[in-house]
Amino acid sequence: MHQSIEHLIELALSEDIGAGDITTDNLIQTDKKAEAVIIAKEPVIAAGLNIAKKVFLKLDSNAVFSPLIKEGEAVKAGDYICKINANFKALLTGERTALNFLQKLSGIATNVKFYTSLLKDKNIKLLDTRKTTPGWRVAEKYAARIGGAANHRFGLFDGVLIKDNHIKAAGSISDAIKTIRKNTSHLLKIEAEASDLIQVKQAVEAGADIIMLDNMKPAMIKDAVKIINKRALIEVSGGINYANIKKFAIDGIDFISSGALIHSARFVDISMYIS
Amino acid sequence: MHQSIEHLIELALSEDIGAGDITTDNLIQTDKKAEAVIIAKEPVIAAGLNIAKKVFLKLDSNAVFSPLIKEGEAVKAGDYICKINANFKALLTGERTALNFLQKLSGIATNVKFYTSLLKDKNIKLLDTRKTTPGWRVAEKYAARIGGAANHRFGLFDGVLIKDNHIKAAGSISDAIKTIRKNTSHLLKIEAEASDLIQVKQAVEAGADIIMLDNMKPAMIKDAVKIINKRALIEVSGGINYANIKKFAIDGIDFISSGALIHSARFVDISMYIS
Amino acid sequence: MHQSIEHLIELALSEDIGAGDITTDNLIQTDKKAEAVIIAKEPVIAAGLNIAKKVFLKLDSNAVFSPLIKEGEAVKAGDYICKINANFKALLTGERTALNFLQKLSGIATNVKFYTSLLKDKNIKLLDTRKTTPGWRVAEKYAARIGGAANHRFGLFDGVLIKDNHIKAAGSISDAIKTIRKNTSHLLKIEAEASDLIQVKQAVEAGADIIMLDNMKPAMIKDAVKIINKRALIEVSGGINYANIKKFAIDGIDFISSGALIHSARFVDISMYIS
Amino acid sequence: MHQSIEHLIELALSEDIGAGDITTDNLIQTDKKAEAVIIAKEPVIAAGLNIAKKVFLKLDSNAVFSPLIKEGEAVKAGDYICKINANFKALLTGERTALNFLQKLSGIATNVKFYTSLLKDKNIKLLDTRKTTPGWRVAEKYAARIGGAANHRFGLFDGVLIKDNHIKAAGSISDAIKTIRKNTSHLLKIEAEASDLIQVKQAVEAGADIIMLDNMKPAMIKDAVKIINKRALIEVSGGINYANIKKFAIDGIDFISSGALIHSARFVDISMYIS
Amino acid sequence: MHQSIEHLIELALSEDIGAGDITTDNLIQTDKKAEAVIIAKEPVIAAGLNIAKKVFLKLDSNAVFSPLIKEGEAVKAGDYICKINANFKALLTGERTALNFLQKLSGIATNVKFYTSLLKDKNIKLLDTRKTTPGWRVAEKYAARIGGAANHRFGLFDGVLIKDNHIKAAGSISDAIKTIRKNTSHLLKIEAEASDLIQVKQAVEAGADIIMLDNMKPAMIKDAVKIINKRALIEVSGGINYANIKKFAIDGIDFISSGALIHSARFVDISMYIS
Amino acid sequence: MHQSIEHLIELALSEDIGAGDITTDNLIQTDKKAEAVIIAKEPVIAAGLNIAKKVFLKLDSNAVFSPLIKEGEAVKAGDYICKINANFKALLTGERTALNFLQKLSGIATNVKFYTSLLKDKNIKLLDTRKTTPGWRVAEKYAARIGGAANHRFGLFDGVLIKDNHIKAAGSISDAIKTIRKNTSHLLKIEAEASDLIQVKQAVEAGADIIMLDNMKPAMIKDAVKIINKRALIEVSGGINYANIKKFAIDGIDFISSGALIHSARFVDISMYIS
Repeated sequence: MHQSIEHLIELALSEDIGAGDITTDNLIQTDKKAEAVIIAKEPVIAAGLNIAKKVFLKLDSNAVFSPLIKEGEAVKAGDYICKINANFKALLTGERTALNFLQKLSGIATNVKFYTSLLKDKNIKLLDTRKTTPGWRVAEKYAARIGGAANHRFGLFDGVLIKDNHIKAAGSISDAIKTIRKNTSHLLKIEAEASDLIQVKQAVEAGADIIMLDNMKPAMIKDAVKIINKRALIEVSGGINYANIKKFAIDGIDFISSGALIHSARFVDISMYIS
Repeated sequence: MHQSIEHLIELALSEDIGAGDITTDNLIQTDKKAEAVIIAKEPVIAAGLNIAKKVFLKLDSNAVFSPLIKEGEAVKAGDYICKINANFKALLTGERTALNFLQKLSGIATNVKFYTSLLKDKNIKLLDTRKTTPGWRVAEKYAARIGGAANHRFGLFDGVLIKDNHIKAAGSISDAIKTIRKNTSHLLKIEAEASDLIQVKQAVEAGADIIMLDNMKPAMIKDAVKIINKRALIEVSGGINYANIKKFAIDGIDFISSGALIHSARFVDISMYIS
Repeated sequence: MHQSIEHLIELALSEDIGAGDITTDNLIQTDKKAEAVIIAKEPVIAAGLNIAKKVFLKLDSNAVFSPLIKEGEAVKAGDYICKINANFKALLTGERTALNFLQKLSGIATNVKFYTSLLKDKNIKLLDTRKTTPGWRVAEKYAARIGGAANHRFGLFDGVLIKDNHIKAAGSISDAIKTIRKNTSHLLKIEAEASDLIQVKQAVEAGADIIMLDNMKPAMIKDAVKIINKRALIEVSGGINYANIKKFAIDGIDFISSGALIHSARFVDISMYIS
Repeated sequence: MHQSIEHLIELALSEDIGAGDITTDNLIQTDKKAEAVIIAKEPVIAAGLNIAKKVFLKLDSNAVFSPLIKEGEAVKAGDYICKINANFKALLTGERTALNFLQKLSGIATNVKFYTSLLKDKNIKLLDTRKTTPGWRVAEKYAARIGGAANHRFGLFDGVLIKDNHIKAAGSISDAIKTIRKNTSHLLKIEAEASDLIQVKQAVEAGADIIMLDNMKPAMIKDAVKIINKRALIEVSGGINYANIKKFAIDGIDFISSGALIHSARFVDISMYIS
Repeated sequence: MHQSIEHLIELALSEDIGAGDITTDNLIQTDKKAEAVIIAKEPVIAAGLNIAKKVFLKLDSNAVFSPLIKEGEAVKAGDYICKINANFKALLTGERTALNFLQKLSGIATNVKFYTSLLKDKNIKLLDTRKTTPGWRVAEKYAARIGGAANHRFGLFDGVLIKDNHIKAAGSISDAIKTIRKNTSHLLKIEAEASDLIQVKQAVEAGADIIMLDNMKPAMIKDAVKIINKRALIEVSGGINYANIKKFAIDGIDFISSGALIHSARFVDISMYIS
Repeated sequence: MHQSIEHLIELALSEDIGAGDITTDNLIQTDKKAEAVIIAKEPVIAAGLNIAKKVFLKLDSNAVFSPLIKEGEAVKAGDYICKINANFKALLTGERTALNFLQKLSGIATNVKFYTSLLKDKNIKLLDTRKTTPGWRVAEKYAARIGGAANHRFGLFDGVLIKDNHIKAAGSISDAIKTIRKNTSHLLKIEAEASDLIQVKQAVEAGADIIMLDNMKPAMIKDAVKIINKRALIEVSGGINYANIKKFAIDGIDFISSGALIHSARFVDISMYIS
């Protein structure tokens, strides 16, 4: 499990338990065991099972967590996701934390899966963005992969994206690309953002490997595709959501990226029952 | 600023910058200053200005952050939220992190404000829940307050809420309340969850200070109000969202709580422009 | 085990071992095992067994720690508290750290038990305070519970206590209680401090749930009890110690709180012997 | 300020404030400033002023902390220790944490000063021990120095002390000292513990630099002094407290060490008043 | 300054100061100021000035650090690197830590500069590797840049490098590249390792963007250059050091990478004098 | 394992893996196991086996690490150091980190062993210094011991070394030693640095336990030995390396210390093969 996710589990338990679970600790003195099931209350793509498992193991190192479906599987309302046999107090104390992870990550996976269904006949890769919950970058991008999207760069460190302000700083897009090519790792391609057709032309001529068409209308995107003429990969971005994505799924583009995949996903309804 | 929020800022910068902002660092060698503005692209309740300020100060300790509105103020599409004068590189590197905080927190505040507008003629307090993003409890509940809700308990440590499983463990609701009263801090009231009218009767007779009517239909809630007859405060909870909240705003209840206030809020559209 | 206590164990081993246990490491090269016993050298209420266990497990993951009494049990001088079978070097290196936890926590439990014996025929709950060793709040309040006291609030976050300065800020005690009632979680009662009978009257009339009689002489406390007349719970606080506590155990009060329970407890005498 | 003390300040504020100071935050909305004084309520040796200062600066970076006495100065009941001008809310929120540090550290300094007064005509150095509050080693030993004691080793890393079990492991005290001398830093002396006169003889002949007479009666100590005959420094230790220390202040010994200096010190009475 | 370097500074001061600088603290009681200079004792490329500055600022927040040369400048034996005006005790306590950073980082920069001089007429970029001191990746790669090398990938996260074992796992190099191309960020190129000419042919035909010629003799490298025929970038790696690098500087290759740039650099001789 | 080394392992994995091992994770989906061997490619003194083991256990808690030689053993080129059976992905991901530790620590041990061979007929102890890689003090000094050196002090906290600037601050070396003797732990000896024969005389007369002859030529060292005449232990230091150490191995001195033992050691050549 990625260190940043282990860290989120610790933060989550710490912020929820604080000085102690006063209801549970003051009511229950025994060490008795119990069984719980986690159930989908609406159709979801389940994500985060290993994280839920870790939550209960942190509270009871003898907990037995049995997944009843596979990570990423589509489940119907009423389906069982997993079963947990553990200390009764650990189940009560960990319930909300485990569910918060499952509901959030499954919410993203479910949302992303819906987006991918809207692109299903197209040869276009759906990408997430860096518009993510601070501290959750790795976890949210993991859920986006589970839902069927590909990840755009994880941060400022693993991909070059030249934006308007970078170009201004460099003098011209051609200078920007030349400088980046000279200074940056030979393992990285160079993506440049263009918001009109003049910038598209400049970017393609300057040798950008990928061109991001930023906030363009579909008609302009079609013109851009012709101008680029396969000399660079094409990413379409800006204000794309489930209501309009089909209009942007234009032949000749390679990628559509949308922050809404992650940042507009809601918690899906998942509950736990202790028997 | 709360320690947990300072910690989120560090996590956010760390996950975004990683080994370095390769685009900016490889393009820009100078120490020149620039000015940026942050602008609402849709109507929002702005939240998180101090956090955005801290993000830029972490990257440039001489940055000057000038808020142009007040925290919690309603702004229209196109309104300026703040101005930042800082090192140009710091602006480029910090932009996404600062916006992610503003978009998320303003998203919650905006969503909550909408819910409160639906309850505006009622003498009912709107409450959040513990269904929050792991690691973000303090920050999200802060944004909910900015939007006009009150906070339910922050965790398992600062409020007693006796649920079904606690009652089973204790034998009866009356035993549960007696035990809790004996063992728990004298500064805390006791809330008990009830999902039918028999449980409501038991809870009120056992002396619960607050009774949570869990997943009840409006008709049953009305009966519960009569049974309770002002002997306890009443919280209505379970599956409440903006589409159905008015039906639950029944006379005689004191609180409505909804996880959707926080967990179904999306990022609102806020952008930064460097001049 | 609470995260804050696990953290104290790490701090303790780190500050004691530093760059290495030079006496043990330079003398003993073998991996031989040994057995140690921990023995009370005076009558104590034993507390902290699980913490001592964890100390040795940190130094030797195969250590076997066998408690010979139960947590919270009263033991006589000469009684065995526990037995540890572990790597000989781990026993030597961990001895002082384990004893420091046991001596301190048992010291508090023993001290608190003595205070409770002084109140034994009274229907008054003994409470600790927030006058605790920085970093040790959860651990010390745990030991106070083991000794028979109840915990007052853990911090500023889980209980409302309106003091003199809060009242000045709010204008009047009645305004303070009204404001707090409006802004604070519905799960919390409100306690107000009063240092004379006028304040007592104001507090009870303003609807405080609990009134703390602060630094009052016994005679004034008796008058306050009459004024309050069961309209609020009563806590007596301020300068109470084992020498004077019986004078404050006045009929009609509900709680006596004393910082001395924790902050004036000394280490009790507990030793370890390796055979 | 030592890192471990800065860490304690963070732990202290975190455990006390938790999710927020609900009384202060819900009552006071303004940013008004106020002045507070911290006053001794009994005669004390004041210690920890810089720590109290740091507590308030953490809560209000513009706080002005004015010491009115010097660190380590003896003050009478009623004397002012310091004055703080800061944000009113910061004063309320930081009061308990700042006082907990001052009361604890001044308590140790005051206790130690009393012990030193009992040895005042003797040429014997008073030493603390490793019987300290876990996590507080550096802070408590600092307070012991303020009170007039010298520090024994800080941990297992900065001094060699050969105890009974080490000798058993090595075969003989002479072997133990030889092995240690060979393996340990040339910058360290070697102290060996002796609990009877035979061991004293062996230790001195084996070339120990310092001999600790452990739990010996005064008569035996006198004999040991004669046997050692200035061939090694002499430390007396074991069960020494303010009631019996004078009996152990025997001519010819160099050091008396006592855990009670630190572990039996209580909080002294110090309060804060906001005007 | 990168978070990982700030963290190293904290570790360094903590491991060196531990429980306190006993020589300095026990000798010097005053707060007097002093001036120090840091001087090269041999010709070096200076690196790490900002880190040395930070070390002294951590120990004395009023320290004034005046660089006398620029980061990356070549200095002769006897040249002054910087001047520090600070608390005398801070200078004594921080000296070794500051020098350790300067000597190590300047050592790398100096070593790398020597390697670049050996390639000076060649159109070949010199690259570092991931053979770095654990915990020091960002710092050491920074020093390599100061010395004139370019950085290869920072870790496993920001560049694809398909090695022998990856190919075995994938079945064939062609399958490996196809799978990686499908699954990995569109912003990354793909580098494949080849250790003989058959593998070179396969890699170039499978569409690798860069081919690493691993542990090949110069003659074989020349053949590989012909086979690749500009269809991919070429990196030469494996056992390259200052003694043999010229033999590997073959026309047609793009990069030479060598772990020795960083891992075989020694501390250079730099001293501090306090006046 | 020392806490600081466990911390380095975490830093190392974190800086290398970052957001994920994109080559391995994107290529290999199975959980298959594999076997790897680690082999010396040149003669080395092997050090760090337990650390390598821990690296793989962090990535696969079921990994089985079998050492094939003993820590500190001399191995020839081609010898197997250890065998690891683990998850195939864990082997690929952990390879570089494990090797970086082994290559660095074995590099130091091998270098130190060479130095000790140069002193083999002399009764002189070889010592390391505080010129170590920041963050690595404990680990590097451990490797120096494995190579056959003894450790000088670990930091400023566990040994007194009076240098020129301390003497200036104290007024005279005699005053410096007197003050230190009074203020510092009775468990510590006192070492003083001397750079000419006058200082040697002063130091020995002032009662220094050890005298460090700093940067003296062999001839002057011989004179110093005569002056000291066994009244203090003698350490020779300053600019000593493998080329000149024999000239400094003068009869009558007790220690030679050299920073080059650690800071001029290079990574030795050690590789891993997965079968």
